Amino acid sequence: MTNVFDLPEATRELQSVARDFAREVLAPNALRWDEQRHFPVEEMREAAKLGMAALYVREESGGSGLTRLDAAVVFEALATGCPVVSAYLSIHNMVAWMIDRFGNDAQRAEWLPGLASMERVASYALTEPGSGSDAAALRTRAARDNEGYVLNGTKQFISGAGASDLYLTMVRTGGEGPSGVSALLIPKETEGLSFGANERKMGWNAQPTRQVIFENARVPATALLGEEGHGFRFAMAGLDGGRLNIAACSLGGAQSALDIALDYVKERKAFGKALADFQNTQFRLADMRIELEAARSLLWRAAAKLDAKEPDATAWCAMAKRFVTDTCSRIADEALQLLGGYGYLADYGIEKIVRDLRVHRILEGTNEIMRLIVARQMLGAR
Amino acid sequence: MTNVFDLPEATRELQSVARDFAREVLAPNALRWDEQRHFPVEEMREAAKLGMAALYVREESGGSGLTRLDAAVVFEALATGCPVVSAYLSIHNMVAWMIDRFGNDAQRAEWLPGLASMERVASYALTEPGSGSDAAALRTRAARDNEGYVLNGTKQFISGAGASDLYLTMVRTGGEGPSGVSALLIPKETEGLSFGANERKMGWNAQPTRQVIFENARVPATALLGEEGHGFRFAMAGLDGGRLNIAACSLGGAQSALDIALDYVKERKAFGKALADFQNTQFRLADMRIELEAARSLLWRAAAKLDAKEPDATAWCAMAKRFVTDTCSRIADEALQLLGGYGYLADYGIEKIVRDLRVHRILEGTNEIMRLIVARQMLGAR
Amino acid sequence: MTNVFDLPEATRELQSVARDFAREVLAPNALRWDEQRHFPVEEMREAAKLGMAALYVREESGGSGLTRLDAAVVFEALATGCPVVSAYLSIHNMVAWMIDRFGNDAQRAEWLPGLASMERVASYALTEPGSGSDAAALRTRAARDNEGYVLNGTKQFISGAGASDLYLTMVRTGGEGPSGVSALLIPKETEGLSFGANERKMGWNAQPTRQVIFENARVPATALLGEEGHGFRFAMAGLDGGRLNIAACSLGGAQSALDIALDYVKERKAFGKALADFQNTQFRLADMRIELEAARSLLWRAAAKLDAKEPDATAWCAMAKRFVTDTCSRIADEALQLLGGYGYLADYGIEKIVRDLRVHRILEGTNEIMRLIVARQMLGAR
Amino acid sequence: MTNVFDLPEATRELQSVARDFAREVLAPNALRWDEQRHFPVEEMREAAKLGMAALYVREESGGSGLTRLDAAVVFEALATGCPVVSAYLSIHNMVAWMIDRFGNDAQRAEWLPGLASMERVASYALTEPGSGSDAAALRTRAARDNEGYVLNGTKQFISGAGASDLYLTMVRTGGEGPSGVSALLIPKETEGLSFGANERKMGWNAQPTRQVIFENARVPATALLGEEGHGFRFAMAGLDGGRLNIAACSLGGAQSALDIALDYVKERKAFGKALADFQNTQFRLADMRIELEAARSLLWRAAAKLDAKEPDATAWCAMAKRFVTDTCSRIADEALQLLGGYGYLADYGIEKIVRDLRVHRILEGTNEIMRLIVARQMLGAR
Repeated sequence: MTNVFDLPEATRELQSVARDFAREVLAPNALRWDEQRHFPVEEMREAAKLGMAALYVREESGGSGLTRLDAAVVFEALATGCPVVSAYLSIHNMVAWMIDRFGNDAQRAEWLPGLASMERVASYALTEPGSGSDAAALRTRAARDNEGYVLNGTKQFISGAGASDLYLTMVRTGGEGPSGVSALLIPKETEGLSFGANERKMGWNAQPTRQVIFENARVPATALLGEEGHGFRFAMAGLDGGRLNIAACSLGGAQSALDIALDYVKERKAFGKALADFQNTQFRLADMRIELEAARSLLWRAAAKLDAKEPDATAWCAMAKRFVTDTCSRIADEALQLLGGYGYLADYGIEKIVRDLRVHRILEGTNEIMRLIVARQMLGAR
Repeated sequence: MTNVFDLPEATRELQSVARDFAREVLAPNALRWDEQRHFPVEEMREAAKLGMAALYVREESGGSGLTRLDAAVVFEALATGCPVVSAYLSIHNMVAWMIDRFGNDAQRAEWLPGLASMERVASYALTEPGSGSDAAALRTRAARDNEGYVLNGTKQFISGAGASDLYLTMVRTGGEGPSGVSALLIPKETEGLSFGANERKMGWNAQPTRQVIFENARVPATALLGEEGHGFRFAMAGLDGGRLNIAACSLGGAQSALDIALDYVKERKAFGKALADFQNTQFRLADMRIELEAARSLLWRAAAKLDAKEPDATAWCAMAKRFVTDTCSRIADEALQLLGGYGYLADYGIEKIVRDLRVHRILEGTNEIMRLIVARQMLGAR
Repeated sequence: MTNVFDLPEATRELQSVARDFAREVLAPNALRWDEQRHFPVEEMREAAKLGMAALYVREESGGSGLTRLDAAVVFEALATGCPVVSAYLSIHNMVAWMIDRFGNDAQRAEWLPGLASMERVASYALTEPGSGSDAAALRTRAARDNEGYVLNGTKQFISGAGASDLYLTMVRTGGEGPSGVSALLIPKETEGLSFGANERKMGWNAQPTRQVIFENARVPATALLGEEGHGFRFAMAGLDGGRLNIAACSLGGAQSALDIALDYVKERKAFGKALADFQNTQFRLADMRIELEAARSLLWRAAAKLDAKEPDATAWCAMAKRFVTDTCSRIADEALQLLGGYGYLADYGIEKIVRDLRVHRILEGTNEIMRLIVARQMLGAR
Repeated sequence: MTNVFDLPEATRELQSVARDFAREVLAPNALRWDEQRHFPVEEMREAAKLGMAALYVREESGGSGLTRLDAAVVFEALATGCPVVSAYLSIHNMVAWMIDRFGNDAQRAEWLPGLASMERVASYALTEPGSGSDAAALRTRAARDNEGYVLNGTKQFISGAGASDLYLTMVRTGGEGPSGVSALLIPKETEGLSFGANERKMGWNAQPTRQVIFENARVPATALLGEEGHGFRFAMAGLDGGRLNIAACSLGGAQSALDIALDYVKERKAFGKALADFQNTQFRLADMRIELEAARSLLWRAAAKLDAKEPDATAWCAMAKRFVTDTCSRIADEALQLLGGYGYLADYGIEKIVRDLRVHRILEGTNEIMRLIVARQMLGAR
């Protein structure tokens, strides 16, 4: 009997390709990239050659035409090599998908080929210094005139900023609230566009995080994605997948931490026997594995729901994001503990995973916002 | 696009039937059965008419021929009405399956029709006073003579004991350890078979729990299921499914507790607004839902693995049992808290669920044994 | 060097007396009282002879003149025999203290001698069906006329109701909100006073819980405790100590559960050695002990702060109540698990403790309300 | 009434001095020291002027003559400025105390004045690459000859290594096991003593961590502390206090994280109101505060027991270390979450606390070893 609750064969093949890439290209460099705060564009272009820069862009648009479930599996696999690079790729993929999904033919033609090959790298600019969880409160202004838009304002916590070639930016073109928000495609070379300092962070060091600053920055009217006032809807649509992806990155990191810990406890001895032979070690390994599989199972169900466009898919993506990112942080922390003092050293790779995964509970909507989304779906409009 | 990670249509239909039965037949009586310690055989025969007494017995043997995934869905649905009755049905189903799977034609012919209709009710007798987690240490002796077996020993914590017509009993026919264990089919009317007092328990009051006592009890050689020395293997095989089922019963109980709490917080007011309008209530509801779905997802994956006879299915069943039963106890406890003082009263139904679900973390192998099983699979033979 | 952070010698002596009483008088009967739902007034009178019915009533008023710290130690000790009886005594003590603290000489003379000997048993009636956490919303009306008060309304979840001789009852004599609340001393024999059915509950069966119903019940003006409009303040003052006491009852229950589990794991064998020799058992016992001592430490600090009338004592009592009752429920649940199937049986005494302690997280202000109180103290008026 | 469960007045004064020092000298530099991996010897000498380098060295030996409770309060206060510097001071203090307690007059005269002023800085070298939790398995060999000892072996994870002037080192002078261990006082300039590279770590960057390598390193016989074979006992005695101190450092870090979060949520707005006005924020702040106070209470009780030389003081120190360090890591992590994306940035100071506190659950005996110690005390010799 075939397993009705397992990955399709094609997805398993993808998974295998992505794991190989993670092991061969990402893992050997991940600690160095972290230490040197290096953004590995060359290696991401290698991933792009495998179709991983436009995973769920339609094939007719030059993408890989895959599902969200496929993407979740790929990002998990890549994250076993480096959660940060995988997470960056997921952001880039989200932008490419938004252009394919909401853009017009000219925009697709202009941007998608370069994005699919990662000759051009994309960032996503939604958050502002004064609007984190409350995304609809954004204040970056794009004033319309005859020639296009004039932008003023600042975006905060923008991954890839300064390095990326394209900034899909949410701006206010209308009044207060969600309906006044539009999405603009802003090239790096836009005059009036500048970047803040690269932020010092707990982790996620393999990608720069900067403010994106608009001072009378001017883009033509053709920079508008879809219609004015639709930006917030696009942003929310993008976030469903973004949440699956970031959860997948946590899974990959936690899996990797568990694997390191498993190897360690088999080798390391204390009181005359391997750590793996102590009951406490065994019970903790079991719990780590169990929680990891529960997280993975929930993520896959959520991804399949988004693929199937089920009406409650947004709530499911939020459920998965909340559960998976929290669970995986705990697993990575447990793995660190199993290595004792060595877990605290950079060389063993686990402390980096703990640091990298920490932010997944915050970004793409904090896990508190995830609870709100889920509660609303449970309670209906009140 | 169809959802590749969801229940098959036929399973959903079963689920709907089982939910209706739970709502109409079980739920209205569950509190009374708990209070009066009543074993509702009549109502279980109604369930049997729907095929629920031999769910994964083969159709050619008179069963419903369904999958373990189907069974998990059915037991969850039934447990929304009463986890205890559902759990009892799952034990009965396990015995029926073991006869179908490991018995001979004569045994199938003798027992399965009555079990499928629940004209005859089955119990499963493995645990002994001195051997809980260490099942292979059992000491009930079945001595072979010319006419059959003479049994001496005591079984502990036997669900349905005293009421059931058949006791599938693990006994020692050979030497120490697993390979000395055989399975016997022992009718209630066997001379030398008696029962202890109905134990006073925290919950699970809708089924009697008694010792099963053998004092020179005699059964013919035809009572032997399969071959001598195979009993422990049968027991373990039965437990894989048994663990899925008991986990499913926890899921149903927790779902029901969450539903009660959800209704309550929408209605109940404090400080001038509905409890559901407090952020803390919302966040907790969300977490309950999220954890419930993670548990359900893991269970369904484990059931599908058992159906697909995957080599690590035993570990997956153990993973699901550990995670689901612990998680669902926590959810039920949270639901009780959401009702405040009312949650502590019997009438609101939640405290019963807390009491009933508590034992699921212990039986069919304690959750500590589950961790051992999972760890062994992770670490390989050491 | 003497230990500056330990109980005074006199408190230790009290503790010893209370432990002896718990072991000799309460423990041998606790399971039976639970099963038979028996309210053991005779045994409580024995406790009263030891001064335990008016522990922190002043000596000049006929009480024991002890501190809140003493009381917390005594209630913990008594709860090792039965948390429910100890909790009931703590309610009775609270009422006696409120009369001593807020009453006039006539009221002290009328009630305290009988309360101190428990010839008369006292209940405390604050909660109403529609006002749980929001105590100030109570609606039981006491209308003033020339002769006294005429009461109408219903109190909910009243411990001892139907059995007690005195009901210290919070009623509305004025307008909305806290300042309209007064406290009345209402004898059992008051005409128009009746009681609901004894509620079926998860635990706390050794004390009856009933509604207290006022239908044109009439009491003289002398029933007023203190002044009109002061009742809510008295109630809140009473609750500070009440929260310490209920936390102490949780401590005693959890200590008893841990002791039972400790004995069990030393004796019980599995896989050829005592459970106590398994590392997992050891680690869990250690965690239980550690959490228990953390809880006890916090409680004692809070009690000492209330004794010292420190300005933030209310917040400390709330902190202790939240932490101790949650922690002790978890410890009792863990103890149950350590006993496996036997833990689920009534005879072993642990499941009763789990059931009894469960309500401590709800009553005397739910643990959610405790968080509110603590947060307010942290954030100041906002 | 005075509070019998509170700090003595003199201890409060010390606390105030230490807090001022932390605020004025440590806090303004802590982030820079972390980034630059700077070991702030100058600032520690300022602390030494306040008596904080020899807190519980006897006054007649030139120390401050304080209690362990005093020390715990001081290290907590210092850790509000920087947990790493406070932790380093606690190690230095431990060495000074061991010389005072176990050394002879000559050793006291040689070392204590310089240690008390921190003109000379001390490290403690117990752990080896192959012996972490199993400290008694250490293999660094000190062979006795006519002139003294010749050392060979490597110590791992040594705080201050390379910078410190003195290394109190546990070596094997006899056979296997604890009784073959001796303690030597080894000056930095000893020939044959060298240091590994400064390890890259998750945190604790304000102190170097290196291997300490002995290659035919030679010290005179007068380097022996106490008698041969007593080293392990000294080490264990030192660890009791060491565990209190490291727990105190966690407390200070967590308190500081909570304070930062508290300030942040009062200022930061979302959805039109301050974060502090959201119920979820309030409940989480309350829980953080409650757990922090429970941790502090347990620590103070443990310290008082060590001061009073109670027979179970070792178990109490282990209890406090396990509970406090785990709890405080969780609090710091929660504080980070309350700041959202800003919590992940280095500038806000919380992510450093999370990183610094992480190792406290590992060093001075992992929290797993703490459980073992507690369990042994509970179970007695088995």
